[in-house]
Amino acid sequence: MTQSNSIIDPRYRGPATFMKAPASRDLAGARAAVLGIPFDCGTHAFRIGSRDGPHAIREQSRLMRPYNPELADYDTISHLGLVDCGDVDVVPGRIEDAFRKIEAATHEIVRAGVRPITMGGDGSVSLPQMRAVAKCHPDLVAVHIDSHTDTNPFVEAEKYNAGTQFTHAALERLVDPKSSFHIGIRGTTYRQHGFSYVRSLGYNIITINALFERGMRDVLAQLHETIGDRPVYLCLDMDSFDPSCAPGVCAPSWGGFTAREGINLFRGLAGLNIVAVDVNTVSPPHDHMGMAAFLAANMMYEATVLLCRYLGLDTVEDVVP
Amino acid sequence: MTQSNSIIDPRYRGPATFMKAPASRDLAGARAAVLGIPFDCGTHAFRIGSRDGPHAIREQSRLMRPYNPELADYDTISHLGLVDCGDVDVVPGRIEDAFRKIEAATHEIVRAGVRPITMGGDGSVSLPQMRAVAKCHPDLVAVHIDSHTDTNPFVEAEKYNAGTQFTHAALERLVDPKSSFHIGIRGTTYRQHGFSYVRSLGYNIITINALFERGMRDVLAQLHETIGDRPVYLCLDMDSFDPSCAPGVCAPSWGGFTAREGINLFRGLAGLNIVAVDVNTVSPPHDHMGMAAFLAANMMYEATVLLCRYLGLDTVEDVVP
Amino acid sequence: MTQSNSIIDPRYRGPATFMKAPASRDLAGARAAVLGIPFDCGTHAFRIGSRDGPHAIREQSRLMRPYNPELADYDTISHLGLVDCGDVDVVPGRIEDAFRKIEAATHEIVRAGVRPITMGGDGSVSLPQMRAVAKCHPDLVAVHIDSHTDTNPFVEAEKYNAGTQFTHAALERLVDPKSSFHIGIRGTTYRQHGFSYVRSLGYNIITINALFERGMRDVLAQLHETIGDRPVYLCLDMDSFDPSCAPGVCAPSWGGFTAREGINLFRGLAGLNIVAVDVNTVSPPHDHMGMAAFLAANMMYEATVLLCRYLGLDTVEDVVP
Amino acid sequence: MTQSNSIIDPRYRGPATFMKAPASRDLAGARAAVLGIPFDCGTHAFRIGSRDGPHAIREQSRLMRPYNPELADYDTISHLGLVDCGDVDVVPGRIEDAFRKIEAATHEIVRAGVRPITMGGDGSVSLPQMRAVAKCHPDLVAVHIDSHTDTNPFVEAEKYNAGTQFTHAALERLVDPKSSFHIGIRGTTYRQHGFSYVRSLGYNIITINALFERGMRDVLAQLHETIGDRPVYLCLDMDSFDPSCAPGVCAPSWGGFTAREGINLFRGLAGLNIVAVDVNTVSPPHDHMGMAAFLAANMMYEATVLLCRYLGLDTVEDVVP
Amino acid sequence: MTQSNSIIDPRYRGPATFMKAPASRDLAGARAAVLGIPFDCGTHAFRIGSRDGPHAIREQSRLMRPYNPELADYDTISHLGLVDCGDVDVVPGRIEDAFRKIEAATHEIVRAGVRPITMGGDGSVSLPQMRAVAKCHPDLVAVHIDSHTDTNPFVEAEKYNAGTQFTHAALERLVDPKSSFHIGIRGTTYRQHGFSYVRSLGYNIITINALFERGMRDVLAQLHETIGDRPVYLCLDMDSFDPSCAPGVCAPSWGGFTAREGINLFRGLAGLNIVAVDVNTVSPPHDHMGMAAFLAANMMYEATVLLCRYLGLDTVEDVVP
Amino acid sequence: MTQSNSIIDPRYRGPATFMKAPASRDLAGARAAVLGIPFDCGTHAFRIGSRDGPHAIREQSRLMRPYNPELADYDTISHLGLVDCGDVDVVPGRIEDAFRKIEAATHEIVRAGVRPITMGGDGSVSLPQMRAVAKCHPDLVAVHIDSHTDTNPFVEAEKYNAGTQFTHAALERLVDPKSSFHIGIRGTTYRQHGFSYVRSLGYNIITINALFERGMRDVLAQLHETIGDRPVYLCLDMDSFDPSCAPGVCAPSWGGFTAREGINLFRGLAGLNIVAVDVNTVSPPHDHMGMAAFLAANMMYEATVLLCRYLGLDTVEDVVP
Repeated sequence: MTQSNSIIDPRYRGPATFMKAPASRDLAGARAAVLGIPFDCGTHAFRIGSRDGPHAIREQSRLMRPYNPELADYDTISHLGLVDCGDVDVVPGRIEDAFRKIEAATHEIVRAGVRPITMGGDGSVSLPQMRAVAKCHPDLVAVHIDSHTDTNPFVEAEKYNAGTQFTHAALERLVDPKSSFHIGIRGTTYRQHGFSYVRSLGYNIITINALFERGMRDVLAQLHETIGDRPVYLCLDMDSFDPSCAPGVCAPSWGGFTAREGINLFRGLAGLNIVAVDVNTVSPPHDHMGMAAFLAANMMYEATVLLCRYLGLDTVEDVVP
Repeated sequence: MTQSNSIIDPRYRGPATFMKAPASRDLAGARAAVLGIPFDCGTHAFRIGSRDGPHAIREQSRLMRPYNPELADYDTISHLGLVDCGDVDVVPGRIEDAFRKIEAATHEIVRAGVRPITMGGDGSVSLPQMRAVAKCHPDLVAVHIDSHTDTNPFVEAEKYNAGTQFTHAALERLVDPKSSFHIGIRGTTYRQHGFSYVRSLGYNIITINALFERGMRDVLAQLHETIGDRPVYLCLDMDSFDPSCAPGVCAPSWGGFTAREGINLFRGLAGLNIVAVDVNTVSPPHDHMGMAAFLAANMMYEATVLLCRYLGLDTVEDVVP
Repeated sequence: MTQSNSIIDPRYRGPATFMKAPASRDLAGARAAVLGIPFDCGTHAFRIGSRDGPHAIREQSRLMRPYNPELADYDTISHLGLVDCGDVDVVPGRIEDAFRKIEAATHEIVRAGVRPITMGGDGSVSLPQMRAVAKCHPDLVAVHIDSHTDTNPFVEAEKYNAGTQFTHAALERLVDPKSSFHIGIRGTTYRQHGFSYVRSLGYNIITINALFERGMRDVLAQLHETIGDRPVYLCLDMDSFDPSCAPGVCAPSWGGFTAREGINLFRGLAGLNIVAVDVNTVSPPHDHMGMAAFLAANMMYEATVLLCRYLGLDTVEDVVP
Repeated sequence: MTQSNSIIDPRYRGPATFMKAPASRDLAGARAAVLGIPFDCGTHAFRIGSRDGPHAIREQSRLMRPYNPELADYDTISHLGLVDCGDVDVVPGRIEDAFRKIEAATHEIVRAGVRPITMGGDGSVSLPQMRAVAKCHPDLVAVHIDSHTDTNPFVEAEKYNAGTQFTHAALERLVDPKSSFHIGIRGTTYRQHGFSYVRSLGYNIITINALFERGMRDVLAQLHETIGDRPVYLCLDMDSFDPSCAPGVCAPSWGGFTAREGINLFRGLAGLNIVAVDVNTVSPPHDHMGMAAFLAANMMYEATVLLCRYLGLDTVEDVVP
Repeated sequence: MTQSNSIIDPRYRGPATFMKAPASRDLAGARAAVLGIPFDCGTHAFRIGSRDGPHAIREQSRLMRPYNPELADYDTISHLGLVDCGDVDVVPGRIEDAFRKIEAATHEIVRAGVRPITMGGDGSVSLPQMRAVAKCHPDLVAVHIDSHTDTNPFVEAEKYNAGTQFTHAALERLVDPKSSFHIGIRGTTYRQHGFSYVRSLGYNIITINALFERGMRDVLAQLHETIGDRPVYLCLDMDSFDPSCAPGVCAPSWGGFTAREGINLFRGLAGLNIVAVDVNTVSPPHDHMGMAAFLAANMMYEATVLLCRYLGLDTVEDVVP
Repeated sequence: MTQSNSIIDPRYRGPATFMKAPASRDLAGARAAVLGIPFDCGTHAFRIGSRDGPHAIREQSRLMRPYNPELADYDTISHLGLVDCGDVDVVPGRIEDAFRKIEAATHEIVRAGVRPITMGGDGSVSLPQMRAVAKCHPDLVAVHIDSHTDTNPFVEAEKYNAGTQFTHAALERLVDPKSSFHIGIRGTTYRQHGFSYVRSLGYNIITINALFERGMRDVLAQLHETIGDRPVYLCLDMDSFDPSCAPGVCAPSWGGFTAREGINLFRGLAGLNIVAVDVNTVSPPHDHMGMAAFLAANMMYEATVLLCRYLGLDTVEDVVP
């Protein structure tokens, strides 16, 4: 029985890796690995700053503790052998160079049979990750939880930004749009006829209104039925949450998920073969009290539970303390 | 097909009119007009500061973009020919003088056949607006969404403040109380027997508890049935929202609407003949991260959708980008 | 008919006792008494600072007003003869000495037949209070609303902290665990097999997920049936609320109660013989805009309503103003 | 030897009167009395909110402790028999009524031979105080430390606001302008030829630039020589401090006093017969971390030292602890 | 005599142009023009966000009023015929395209004989401005007040960023380095031998330590003697101020100018032929209470005084109000 | 020539050790080592929270860069072979146990001939450090920069707290009080006759007023003359800085050092044989924008320069980049 507690190991002490996982790039023995992607130069519209997202999420993850008695009464970090690989060595400005580095760093993890859990950075960083994951998982589908589809048409001169990553994912055939879902879509956009374009690429759109009208159970059933055991790229843009929960995002939009709704949506994904988790768009300069970063850390923890379940690592020893 | 986007027109650039509508007092061609009313001297109880509300709402409205693919896939600002008329030239302290100026500025808009969308200022500013609107719409009813009825008895020396505007509206017969509604009422007040007095004037009260017990659908049906096509003065006090969504208000009260609930309540008003929209009580010095102001801007956008729908301006061109 | 209003008595004026109740240690004539317990040295895990909780709650309680027309159209403060007894004279560091003082101060109130409404301080302060209350109410049961059970096993050297108070309450037989409830439990902990230990002591656990799956009505029915008219120690840890409502707590956890849910849970306790109310864990240095403190003040007001109802003090005079 | 310390008396505990002085209106035995004046309706220009100033200053004064070993190694509060009289019962809006109440409350203190130390409220509240003080001290002079002279011409309809109090003081002959000083003046104003008008009333102006060019020693010598032992109304507008020290004021202006400069200026006034101290213009909603309020509390403490010195109460007992 | 005041024209009302100057691109009659440059993609090191700088400075400039009785008892805005030209239509990401637009917009002003007062944007935006100014003023010198020289060596692939603008200015011969000054330099950098490189290009460096050791008077004498009446590009990076005054900058560094020191330094430049003023590096997401933006607005006001003086527009009418 | 820059190594990327020094406990080759001491249970008076100080200082140290062209144009971190040893494994509450661990961790560094640079934690943590340092340096003197002497008399039951560490240092003969200095003392305290007690133990007190009256040069000369080459324990309590620079401390006091004054005081210590550096009292929950933590990081950097100078490691290579 693994034990840790506030007396032995106060959370404010020592280096702030994700949930105090070992800082290491050694993937041997790991089933999952955390990777930070401090890149925000795909943010055109308004609030830039997610380059400091990985740092802030690690800091807030200190508030997370290893056991969840109801959900997962075991230490997901140690069951997964999770390591915190640090940050991709991107620099500002050169988006194509950054994309190559992100793709390489992600690919190194995926090809080792390890499932990456990444923290952005803005939404643009999802594209090189999908490129890397698709190399190893040709039948990939995306479950993209966001208030925006990030599937805009583009002009060549500005082809890469935080609004076009799923356009490229479809055009480059990284994911199968017909089995992929944009979930939680709401709010205003820069473009007319946005949904027509998204659907013309083959994607499914489930707006947040549709989700609550149909009921989460119904939507989840559709997902499971459509996707089956195909490998899933799970992408969570933190602006899918309501600004009352996640103020520090790039393009906030009212009417989003409460924390509990978002947590329940994630839990409903249990059973999917999630091969990569991508949590992005925490913008610390626009956050307050680290709320968006703390919620992102919480969702990454929920992802570790999903991985443990799928991988059969959710064993709870019988010893009573 | 009108197009704008983050590349061509980043939201942080240029003057902060409401949603970047033209700054103009020229009402020709306009179906709706935004007007700021920076007056807060009706705030007696506690938190004064809504004089800076119009500025803060304009600033936050920069986060709103023109299209909403699910709700309104057209540019409501341009379809309405909406202009931002700037602020009424009120000064602090002289409430009766301020009321005359507010009434005159509102009347100028209404008598031109244009629907005003105003941003306060505290709740006291609704009275002169109702005086102006009632001149042109004798059969006016009020839909007042608030945590307080603002229908207190008054003493002559203090007849005008942010708690008596709907008392005067009834006594001056500006609205028909029997068809008018106070919706979302909750929380503590300074006075006993408050509801008796409100009902003695003829008003309908739907507390937030009653609303959720009956269900929003049922309440909305009652509103539509009672009001029909009579002209509606739609008044939204931002303290109807929960402090977790709208901290920066004058008299916050826990247990209010979430953003999604408030948005859905507004959407349920579609079909009403809303002739004036009044969003008040954003107090920027008590806000944080501009949350209340941003939510107010969002609700004003929702109001533009309601106006487009009623006026048949909700046409979406067929061209796919 | 008691009257007060914003003209006569603005809330920002004068000393900030709880809801402007008289500052007094004279319990004669009082049915309830507020007591501050500024002690936070049981906070081991992370965010210390609740020593300033009582001050912050009193400050925010200035936003509360005496009447609630729907819920309680009478002045609960004056109907209860509520007095604000100030703070227990605890000092930092010496937890056993502090516990003796807290027990003595609480006992002084309870043995006078007065119901204490206390504001912590961290959760550790509940133990000496339960010791005091149990002396006068041998058949005591606890209703503990929290995201954590605070029923951890302990080592002798660290027996008292903010995670073991309900362990001791069971072991010292201060409350009857079989009729006592931990409600709203969720989130991560330091220990494996936490629930097994809690249940081995006899306690009932109702996680927040179980509560919403079963429905609040069903859970409340179980409580009322189990508890009947036995004396109840009502303990509210403010971290039971979601961080979007109550950011300033010691160990925040996403997915908690909204303000409205928490209020409704409290209202559902009407009819219980609540002999002591304990609201703890507001940590002002980690709060923003006083949100957690304001919500705590609101819940304490809701508690005064519960006490008035049980004691038959909920009389509303018939005079219309 | 009076003693208090952090073990016996932590500052965060108990009611927040000014520096924990007794809350009392009993002036018998007192040589000085603190009075709050929560009125801000003279604030026309921009940032309203100083109505909450007295509350915030009391809260921050908890950080002040009784002894200053270098400056005043005795408890000034107890040596002065200082009492905290609470707040004047002003209400918003009715400035002339408020002025009557402020004058009466101040007069009650002054005519008892007690020296008031008041905390505003905006600058307008100085006028009724000077009216009260001048009744008992006909030869009064003003030492006014501010970034503005608050000596503007006025129109009859707006005669009273936070920019005209020293105009009226001169015209009503409450103070002798020729021996009175505006010190620390700087920054921008609404009016041209402001200094001409001020000087035409007889006042001396010492701009902050003049003060630092001449040197503080030289300026203080002029003050002492001009004023001698005449009774002094000492008025400190907190906006005389730089915004880096006192952000929470109504009309901030860069280039003001640092805390140390302001403290030294006050200390240089030792020997003046200060009969009233008026610290105003703390606006809590525009403050952060309570900085302006904390600095105001500190300056009020410095004033108690000045009073002790002038009154010969600065005796330090010889007992070594 | 121009007059405005708080009664007639409260500062919080109406559109927030710089100090309420007319929003116009019509340069006829103007001697100076304000231009916003919302571009921050030259910020590589850490804190990005100055794209929102122009908006924040305009907002805070509402706190500035037209007259300064000691310094400039006339309305500098109207004496200069100053117009606020809005923002250059830059978009994120494409730095060379942005530079072309900035150069064009600046050149349009300069070639009309108007002196631009610009607000960034990060420091990279100075280069295209110097290109534009140098076209019309071939004998240009730079007075650059900053904590960094922004004169780093560069690699071709990253030639343009917020640390190389004065390198290019020297290499492109836009300014004469031998008569140009970097003033206020302090703190840590990424590179060794930084000063050698700067001096190898010909520039003068006056560190903040050197400035205070020599005395400001001595340094200013050197400047005036060296520069004479040659046209001056006055560039103020707001990080030259101490973080206690200007927290919201890209690369803060302790030990900088206080507000008063910075103001006095500017005033000491009176008499120089300043042909362009460039105030940059306000990063609103990292600011609090708008302090850096408010101080930037204040410095821009000081610049208007410098321009009025040089141009002989500093006439004060004789009429006493 | 060592080089790093924003392109190659942006500061926001990767683990936040102190100034990106290697995270290591391997002291071989190191001349100095950073150690965090996250303990705050000696904080009795008011604002607790410095347990999170080391984390916050590391985070803010990301803003520091390796070279200072004027002061130290070489990489002090690499010249010292500085390692960041992480945090002492203290837990809250058990002060004597914590003291043993702090002493052991410090001793391990000192006995290896390495100079510790520690970051608290509250001031109480200085005592065990002085115990460790004194073991290896029997002739130790203290230079203690603080607004309080922390040399209070104590009662046995509370002998260890953040106000008695220098009392014990004298009584345990860890330092030689006659050659030790408390510098920068100011403000209010809990006790009368504080200075008498401090002097009775032999310490020198230089108040901040005395320092500025005598001049820093004169005070520094006294220090150098008195101390000579004896080993120095350099202790900096961050509350020696003014709250405008360092708001986030436990017991703030107005009138303190500006950043530049504090930096210059440190630089004046060059030549002293500083064998240990102790920077304490950063309380992140009471900080804003990380100001106190950032300034603490800056002072630690200044300490690395002092160490390099004394150790002859201040060599600058001649290569021009």
